[in-house]
Amino acid sequence: MTIAATDGAARTGELTTARGMIRTPAFMPVGTAGTVKAMYPEQVRALGADVILGNTYHLMLRPGAERVAALGGLHVFANWPHPILTDSGGFQVMSLAGLRKLDEDGVTFQSHLDGSTHRLTPERSLEIQALLDADIRMQLDECVRLPASRQEVERAMRLSLRWAERSKAAFGETRERALFGIVQGGDQPDLRIESAEGLAAIGFDGYAIGGLAVGEPQDVMLAMLDTTVPALPADKPRYLMGVGQPDDIVEAVARGVDMFDCVLPTRAGRHGVAYTRFGKLNMKNARHAEDPRPLDEAMDWAPSRDYSRAYLHHLVKSGELLAGMLLTWNNLAYYQHLMAGIRAAIAEGRYAAFVAGTKAGWARGDLPPL
Amino acid sequence: MTIAATDGAARTGELTTARGMIRTPAFMPVGTAGTVKAMYPEQVRALGADVILGNTYHLMLRPGAERVAALGGLHVFANWPHPILTDSGGFQVMSLAGLRKLDEDGVTFQSHLDGSTHRLTPERSLEIQALLDADIRMQLDECVRLPASRQEVERAMRLSLRWAERSKAAFGETRERALFGIVQGGDQPDLRIESAEGLAAIGFDGYAIGGLAVGEPQDVMLAMLDTTVPALPADKPRYLMGVGQPDDIVEAVARGVDMFDCVLPTRAGRHGVAYTRFGKLNMKNARHAEDPRPLDEAMDWAPSRDYSRAYLHHLVKSGELLAGMLLTWNNLAYYQHLMAGIRAAIAEGRYAAFVAGTKAGWARGDLPPL
Repeated sequence: MTIAATDGAARTGELTTARGMIRTPAFMPVGTAGTVKAMYPEQVRALGADVILGNTYHLMLRPGAERVAALGGLHVFANWPHPILTDSGGFQVMSLAGLRKLDEDGVTFQSHLDGSTHRLTPERSLEIQALLDADIRMQLDECVRLPASRQEVERAMRLSLRWAERSKAAFGETRERALFGIVQGGDQPDLRIESAEGLAAIGFDGYAIGGLAVGEPQDVMLAMLDTTVPALPADKPRYLMGVGQPDDIVEAVARGVDMFDCVLPTRAGRHGVAYTRFGKLNMKNARHAEDPRPLDEAMDWAPSRDYSRAYLHHLVKSGELLAGMLLTWNNLAYYQHLMAGIRAAIAEGRYAAFVAGTKAGWARGDLPPL
Repeated sequence: MTIAATDGAARTGELTTARGMIRTPAFMPVGTAGTVKAMYPEQVRALGADVILGNTYHLMLRPGAERVAALGGLHVFANWPHPILTDSGGFQVMSLAGLRKLDEDGVTFQSHLDGSTHRLTPERSLEIQALLDADIRMQLDECVRLPASRQEVERAMRLSLRWAERSKAAFGETRERALFGIVQGGDQPDLRIESAEGLAAIGFDGYAIGGLAVGEPQDVMLAMLDTTVPALPADKPRYLMGVGQPDDIVEAVARGVDMFDCVLPTRAGRHGVAYTRFGKLNMKNARHAEDPRPLDEAMDWAPSRDYSRAYLHHLVKSGELLAGMLLTWNNLAYYQHLMAGIRAAIAEGRYAAFVAGTKAGWARGDLPPL
């Protein structure tokens, strides 16, 4: 990756892949099962997303990695000819799958769809990600929910390090695709450092920070970033997995993180929640029912500008598909707008002022009632 | 309306409204509750729809006609600055509402949403349609499902004629908006003629043919058109309500019908069904699961050209919102493509050949399996 500018620990640059360039700091919309829910792929691209995420767990179960490969890979399948990052599947095995059994070699689990039994190992995860032909692939790791005992966190971190080694071997020597290792270590600073240094010694194309935003307070997450990021190679991208709220993102960028993914903007959009410069709005709330004002007419995307709050409220209350379509669009547009602002501010050496201004907007809150 | 060309009984022309021109024969996508389900309004327009339909029944219950009026009318509310036709609400009272009681003056019914009691009369229906500010408004009528006794059909037709008179009076003298009467009379030719002549004597801006496609075979529907259309004024638009399948549309156009609306393309799209030049495809069917071919790549709309059948199958099976979004888009595009073909064929005096060619495509059926 090339770093064009830094501002404190924050940095902006470009990560080059065979399918195109990723501007960092980057937010990656989540395309769980080969679709960013309620969005056409052209729309996601037009909002400024350089890369989307695909979930190995979902895709291996349906339609199956071998089928996607036979159909030309995930880019062709999902009509997204731009970079794709896939996770390893491990996180969702832990959060979604039925009965599961972890051993040194991998994890056996039951599909949440039909109860069928499947197995993921570091090698099989990389094989699936190769079948999907992801541009950026992740090692299989074990992510522990916090709070957890030091013993449990340490065991999972050590296992993840051994799996990192096997993942590197399984990935092979290709330079056309990238493999990221994943730092674990829970809320234990020394374990985080041991994990980061262990991964750096193996050598990856990028480093993810996993096991955060899994139940701990924000200050714990930020403290772990303060500890972990300096232990990672400065010339490689850093990816904070599954994060997060806009406020988490601006704070993590200040600590040197380059990449993010999160289901919040898409999931919230399907549940009637709009992200704006002035915080989150629940469009189901009756106070919007007769409000002719748009969400935020200064923003140049249609859902924020061309539809009244009253109409959005009506769509949400009526269960109309257009509600999720418009609010997801708005939320992803807001996230990409935020990332573009972050990149410009770092490039111009005014990141602290940008963060202060952005937080002042969130703190101001929504428009007063009419 | 101006009639630019005729070919047999078929005709093509333009119907002018204060908000724009409607090319006929026209298919009107159904925007039930102020949204054509799973479509952005700009998309509906871009496909060639000159007019959409709004349902008085749905909108009077939620968000309420007075609220829509306070918000600037349905065009502003739904972000559709083009012509809108509203129905009278009567049909959905009969098909959706709970407990209902019809009397000479109107109908009292319970909302299917919350059981609350409401009343529609010819005057209140027109008042609601004025609050919505519809460009084309419909008289309240009583539609009888077939089969029904002659006595029942006759009673409902006579009541509808009396309501037509009251609707005309309630509509008033405005020339900026249009009011259509509705022919009833079930499957009884003499009653259809009596209804059509009665409405023509009152005088409307257009004439709808109601009470068809309500359970009777297609040949009965077409026979009723053969009977009814010649009894209607030649210089006014004729609208066959709630119709229909593509095959119904081409046959009705051949009999002199100018306007259509139907939920089929949108509803089918949300249920995994694609309309194509070669008939309907159920994308849930396992034969599509590994098929890399698009629906019909000769068509110039994205859902037909840019996505594989395997992907559409995957989206439908996975319950992804994008399934309904892509298939609704495809189906409305196909319907508008069909209407454009119909208009061009009539203008060029080759409508019979167009119908034969179109039917040959449907009869050919889908591509053979790979």
